[in-house]
Amino acid sequence: MSPATSPHTPDSVGVVATQTVRLFTDEPLALAGGGALGDIDVAYETYGTLAADGANAVYLCHALTGDAHAAGWHEGDARPGWWDNLVGPGKPLDTERFFVICSNLLGGCQGTTGPSSTNPATGQAWGLEFPLLAMADFVAVHRALCSHLGVTRLLAALGGSLGGMQVLQWSLDHPDDMANAVIVAASSRLTAQNIAFSAVARRAITDDPSFRQGHYAADGVNPDLGLSIARMMAHITYLSEDAFTEKFGRLPQYETSRPGFGIDFAVESYLDHQAQVFLERFDALSYLYLSRVMDYFDPFADAAALEAVSRRPVNYLVLSFDSDWRFSTAHSLRMVRRLEGVRLPVTFREIASPFGHDSFLLADPIYHATLAAFLDRALEVGT
Amino acid sequence: MSPATSPHTPDSVGVVATQTVRLFTDEPLALAGGGALGDIDVAYETYGTLAADGANAVYLCHALTGDAHAAGWHEGDARPGWWDNLVGPGKPLDTERFFVICSNLLGGCQGTTGPSSTNPATGQAWGLEFPLLAMADFVAVHRALCSHLGVTRLLAALGGSLGGMQVLQWSLDHPDDMANAVIVAASSRLTAQNIAFSAVARRAITDDPSFRQGHYAADGVNPDLGLSIARMMAHITYLSEDAFTEKFGRLPQYETSRPGFGIDFAVESYLDHQAQVFLERFDALSYLYLSRVMDYFDPFADAAALEAVSRRPVNYLVLSFDSDWRFSTAHSLRMVRRLEGVRLPVTFREIASPFGHDSFLLADPIYHATLAAFLDRALEVGT
Repeated sequence: MSPATSPHTPDSVGVVATQTVRLFTDEPLALAGGGALGDIDVAYETYGTLAADGANAVYLCHALTGDAHAAGWHEGDARPGWWDNLVGPGKPLDTERFFVICSNLLGGCQGTTGPSSTNPATGQAWGLEFPLLAMADFVAVHRALCSHLGVTRLLAALGGSLGGMQVLQWSLDHPDDMANAVIVAASSRLTAQNIAFSAVARRAITDDPSFRQGHYAADGVNPDLGLSIARMMAHITYLSEDAFTEKFGRLPQYETSRPGFGIDFAVESYLDHQAQVFLERFDALSYLYLSRVMDYFDPFADAAALEAVSRRPVNYLVLSFDSDWRFSTAHSLRMVRRLEGVRLPVTFREIASPFGHDSFLLADPIYHATLAAFLDRALEVGT
Repeated sequence: MSPATSPHTPDSVGVVATQTVRLFTDEPLALAGGGALGDIDVAYETYGTLAADGANAVYLCHALTGDAHAAGWHEGDARPGWWDNLVGPGKPLDTERFFVICSNLLGGCQGTTGPSSTNPATGQAWGLEFPLLAMADFVAVHRALCSHLGVTRLLAALGGSLGGMQVLQWSLDHPDDMANAVIVAASSRLTAQNIAFSAVARRAITDDPSFRQGHYAADGVNPDLGLSIARMMAHITYLSEDAFTEKFGRLPQYETSRPGFGIDFAVESYLDHQAQVFLERFDALSYLYLSRVMDYFDPFADAAALEAVSRRPVNYLVLSFDSDWRFSTAHSLRMVRRLEGVRLPVTFREIASPFGHDSFLLADPIYHATLAAFLDRALEVGT
């Protein structure tokens, strides 16, 4: 893990601010599962400068609970963006050479329209009236943002976890949009166990009495209990068992710990802390909507999509981490086999990292070197 | 998995009933963590006949949510006891030859005194006023039941998961009590990840508004929401990822399934069903008390205990299952190394079974053959 930098260190993109644009104002977005949604606000950030020939644009797709703030520092913040170790002068996504875009996805809660946004038809928060989403809907909004920014073809789309799933969908449905696709710690199809974890998390949220059938905002309450449980459980799956042992072992939280049912062990304090900070930044309805998209994601079920991309090949980099048990290497290898099955060029690496699924957010040197080498070559070949 | 038998098949112990005895009536039990508890009701069952020389008694210790009803059929029940595939005429614990005892453990909720029993001092349910327990307290009550039944020394104590942990504690603290100890799919020390899963389960229970600081019974409510979450999450850890895939894959629950936030996938229906049946038979306070005992269990931290048993050797059988990721083979091997480190005789097997932690309850033929061979030899050697 890299040491914290500051907005003023030479490898930082410096102080940045999230911008918002309203898209689909003339024509609503036709959703993959039926229905339509217009006037979609999209929160985004960009780093670096789009080249005159437009051939240096890289789109970052974020994971389940990410946001548009991938790099740099928001005024006054104590921490930089979630992928700051990857994006900046001299970093693998070198902002002296690449133009980097990151947006909060549709259904999110960090500036982009989602189920807790106001439904213009009622003047109230959408709640569960918000339409169900699919991976293709995320992609449709990303594409509209690209148009708005004058980006006609990406050098690469890049994402980890749910971000990688968006990249895969995008590359299959619109292979003309990108020259390269980088898919990290992701899956083309959740297992029953993956779905089970998400199902319990959603159940904790919807069963929280403060969920109020999704009307919690109008009622001035929040399903904090359920959202906390969801986050704590998810965090167990984000780290490897070895990483938990290494970080916490069986350390008591307090020297004078006497057995009880609160926070006795350091690992319990960690989970509690993760829940607390999550409540400040995330919305329960977004958790439901976004996690359900992952459950249903299965793009290779559509053989025609693979056919299409094989006629307009995208160059893939697929990465997994050996200690990731949420989306293990088996998930990545399945993608690799399907893509290579239609003769698409795929570079695959399993990176050795003890930190589990969260490794995709960390600055493992071999991981970053692999990304940097792939992206440098991509820039050399061009769009 | 063996086909369901009936009370009337030749290998069944037939119709049985749980009995209850009140122990510690004269002298209360001094608890390992301080404090004392008197007038402890213990629910138990026995199968077979104690030999004249008393040398054929086997004690079964149950897992977190088990009970005294290990074998045979309760009048009118559709299913036999939880370890019926192991106990009966001709089975590995052949009731023609062995005298088998099983009791509900202290702190439980199926007939033995626990936190939802009545506190004689107040006439109300104990709730969180019930004293905190330790593994040694479970053992102390088992020992008192043995005395009551006229069993002075066991041929073997046998248990899976938390049951195996009780057997280990018992063998270390009172090696005179048993000739053999059989420890299946257990651990001598939970990992941070193990504790994390239990912590989230407890949090779901204690944060349920119906928990009422443990006074739910007096208030006529029940923390069903929290207990359901705890059970669903636990079930994810009881099965291997492959078993989930094999059983459910990505099967939709209904042919007409449209995406929503309820039960769309078969695996979600399974978890929901597990929660529903669990609510009918288990108590939230017992879940807190018993799971916390597991978190703190660390008997090898006391080097003197190992010294003691090495002077009065118990013969161990330690079994793990290769697909068990709750208490993996690494947990069993750690026990084996510690026991062999003081030159105790240990037979160890890792059984190949795709069903994860739950394998200890199933009738895998190699697993049962290993148990049968060990128990037959134990009977031959005697106490």
